[in-house]
Amino acid sequence: MLNKFYNKVDSLNLNLIIKKIKVKNKLNSISDVKINNIATLDKSKKNDITFFHSIKYLNYIPKIKSTYIITQEKFSKFFNKKHKLLIVDNVLLSVAKLTSLFYPDALNDDFESKFIDVSQSTKFKKVKLGNNVIIGKNVKIGTNTKIGHNTIIESNVEIGNNCTIGSNIIIKKSIIGNNVNILDGAVIGKKGFGFYPDKKKNIRYPHIGLVIIGHNVEIGCNNTIDRGSLSNTVIGDNTFLDNQVHIAHNVKIGKNSIITAQVGFAGSSTIGERVSIGGQAGISGHLKIGNNVQIGGGSGVIKNIPDNTKVMGYPAKDIRIFLKENK
Amino acid sequence: MLNKFYNKVDSLNLNLIIKKIKVKNKLNSISDVKINNIATLDKSKKNDITFFHSIKYLNYIPKIKSTYIITQEKFSKFFNKKHKLLIVDNVLLSVAKLTSLFYPDALNDDFESKFIDVSQSTKFKKVKLGNNVIIGKNVKIGTNTKIGHNTIIESNVEIGNNCTIGSNIIIKKSIIGNNVNILDGAVIGKKGFGFYPDKKKNIRYPHIGLVIIGHNVEIGCNNTIDRGSLSNTVIGDNTFLDNQVHIAHNVKIGKNSIITAQVGFAGSSTIGERVSIGGQAGISGHLKIGNNVQIGGGSGVIKNIPDNTKVMGYPAKDIRIFLKENK
Amino acid sequence: MLNKFYNKVDSLNLNLIIKKIKVKNKLNSISDVKINNIATLDKSKKNDITFFHSIKYLNYIPKIKSTYIITQEKFSKFFNKKHKLLIVDNVLLSVAKLTSLFYPDALNDDFESKFIDVSQSTKFKKVKLGNNVIIGKNVKIGTNTKIGHNTIIESNVEIGNNCTIGSNIIIKKSIIGNNVNILDGAVIGKKGFGFYPDKKKNIRYPHIGLVIIGHNVEIGCNNTIDRGSLSNTVIGDNTFLDNQVHIAHNVKIGKNSIITAQVGFAGSSTIGERVSIGGQAGISGHLKIGNNVQIGGGSGVIKNIPDNTKVMGYPAKDIRIFLKENK
Repeated sequence: MLNKFYNKVDSLNLNLIIKKIKVKNKLNSISDVKINNIATLDKSKKNDITFFHSIKYLNYIPKIKSTYIITQEKFSKFFNKKHKLLIVDNVLLSVAKLTSLFYPDALNDDFESKFIDVSQSTKFKKVKLGNNVIIGKNVKIGTNTKIGHNTIIESNVEIGNNCTIGSNIIIKKSIIGNNVNILDGAVIGKKGFGFYPDKKKNIRYPHIGLVIIGHNVEIGCNNTIDRGSLSNTVIGDNTFLDNQVHIAHNVKIGKNSIITAQVGFAGSSTIGERVSIGGQAGISGHLKIGNNVQIGGGSGVIKNIPDNTKVMGYPAKDIRIFLKENK
Repeated sequence: MLNKFYNKVDSLNLNLIIKKIKVKNKLNSISDVKINNIATLDKSKKNDITFFHSIKYLNYIPKIKSTYIITQEKFSKFFNKKHKLLIVDNVLLSVAKLTSLFYPDALNDDFESKFIDVSQSTKFKKVKLGNNVIIGKNVKIGTNTKIGHNTIIESNVEIGNNCTIGSNIIIKKSIIGNNVNILDGAVIGKKGFGFYPDKKKNIRYPHIGLVIIGHNVEIGCNNTIDRGSLSNTVIGDNTFLDNQVHIAHNVKIGKNSIITAQVGFAGSSTIGERVSIGGQAGISGHLKIGNNVQIGGGSGVIKNIPDNTKVMGYPAKDIRIFLKENK
Repeated sequence: MLNKFYNKVDSLNLNLIIKKIKVKNKLNSISDVKINNIATLDKSKKNDITFFHSIKYLNYIPKIKSTYIITQEKFSKFFNKKHKLLIVDNVLLSVAKLTSLFYPDALNDDFESKFIDVSQSTKFKKVKLGNNVIIGKNVKIGTNTKIGHNTIIESNVEIGNNCTIGSNIIIKKSIIGNNVNILDGAVIGKKGFGFYPDKKKNIRYPHIGLVIIGHNVEIGCNNTIDRGSLSNTVIGDNTFLDNQVHIAHNVKIGKNSIITAQVGFAGSSTIGERVSIGGQAGISGHLKIGNNVQIGGGSGVIKNIPDNTKVMGYPAKDIRIFLKENK
């Protein structure tokens, strides 16, 4: 995907890469090799570099298209001669560093000091703008959409038709559908809370993903929705979020779901369609919640939940068992 | 109540109502009937329409003053000849649709683009206004009240004397007493999170209630307090709310209560006087919490609590039992 | 400490103090006595007044430097003749009243209506300022620091070099180190949620402390961090806070800690170094959490936790026991 939201360098010399991520083995005849991008095993192309950090992904190896693979010594036995390995101590830390090299502003969430003068622009004549609205460069906003007072829409953001965006809102790195309501005080699209702890100064994981919001969605007051790291954070069509909900990076919520106030999602979980979550429930990271799932208020979900299930409790269990145990 | 906050149409033709809410039975000689309003069983007047959706309200039937009643087929046996029934599949969905017809802007929470120029107005000369304050039409603010920077007070809001309203706050559809502190970032008076799920586009329940805040109240930073649907959301005198509290529509909190940070209330619960609630506790919807109740931090309250009770746990139980079980 | 953030009266006549806090015993030859300040047992100087309200502090008594001590009748036996006691019914309420006399604006969190015109000032030429930024008097901001749109920095605040302060943020009564990121919508430095309940009008405890933030810290979106009452609220170097975290007054968090989204801290708890806290966990007040502690998401911590411990649950217990009980 051509990603207008992030600058990418055209290519990096492999020698530079080897030096920056401190590769431990010696590679031959690489002086002229240029690498176009960094990508996951399934998406990497011939001139990209990819990475392998867990045997969960063994079945991807036969289909790898790129020549150069960042991995650890212990995984080297899974590869054959056509794969050229870059052996490192910590694969994901190397990926983080390399992603930052390819996308030099992927960690930059500074406020945008350059914005258009909306009072002088005819670009948004079919949009109703409040007082003190700030709109960055190259923003697209559909007809009959309203943007409330003091709201900040950063560069390249796309907002559909007939949307109601409230006041005191900040939106960056996001693509938003039609008929979407975003309520006052929400902050959408900042980088996620991902980093490698380091004694002196934690090392942040770059975030080159977006927030993708479907049609007919409602986002409540003071919500915080972080953008994805390598993939996107996604809210499906006709899903409604109440106030003070937090959604971490890479979370994907399906269509027609209902998320009540103060619910929190840790990173990279996938939530099905027609899921209903009661107030203050928490969903741990990297989980899969099925379709038609109901999660009671206050629950703490720490494992996957199959389709058509009702759960409650901390940790969450079948709701009949929870209510029986707590009569 | 004459409600200046919402436009109401003068009356609706009964034929139009029948068509809009898809009445299943046939009514005679109604071509000229005009209906003035929609109201609950106990408050409806002669020319209003009312509704009956649960046998909990059977004892109201002898006192109904209006002729026309929206209900389901299964409830028709409770009514006599003088009652003219409009039989529908879903009473509350019909009420929602009809309320929207009577109050066409009850679902409109768009930002207000019309506001007064406070720099040119003498109306607020006894009020201390920050920078970039936005005040809508017909707002009343008492003497010696302060309104901080970037704060938005929408039309018809009333604020008493000696109040301190902080910065970056949004207040709509609210009536606020004297000596009230509202802290930075709070959002007060938006419509509640009530709707009928629909596969293509959820149908919102209209909210024609207000937020009523008493005297000497404190509302913490980044709180969200939603207005009522048919009734009001109420915070009693001298009740203090800490930061990041969420209060859903129709909740009523009594006097002299203490609500600590990150507590959440689901819709329509009633909380007594001198109630103390610890941080992060959650109160489910439609509950009655008595006077002098203490709820421990982190509790999840899912049933009514009588007066003079201390509870803790998820679900909340007598605090002595909770602490004994968890020694 | 000379505290530029709060005005302090030079001294108070002891007779006035006795009257204001309703001292019950009679003291002799005090007509000319002036008191310079109020201070805790360990920090009070010769001409200060101090207070004793719990036998936990018995061992401080021999080292008290001030002559006058506010206490209750039941504690008078612990003192000797050189101590002159002021006997009251409620020590802490008296301290609150007296602190307000010494620091008359300690309870004033009104927005600041006086601020400098940054467009006319050269003071911040090495700072990148967004649109509609408000900066109070006597603020210090280091080189290469960025302050986003609509952000308010109140008087006397100090911010270090290379910091990124986002948009719609409010900072007061705070001292912030270098390389700190504060994300959009955070509210830092307001007075804490401390007061004496009173039937007519609760009496607030004065807050004359600060928020002290170290170097390389990240504060998430919509966080609320209250300042200290008599001591400070402290966030150690290289500690990262995710979105929607609440930190009450006097909390101290050590270095290199990780606090995930929606965590809440009640007042006066001390958290060690390298502590990791999962999403939505709550930490009760006045606790001591050791170094290298891991607290699972959703936990409710209600007692001290020693170093090098992993806990989870509500109430929190050893994580192995929690997971075993909940298999």
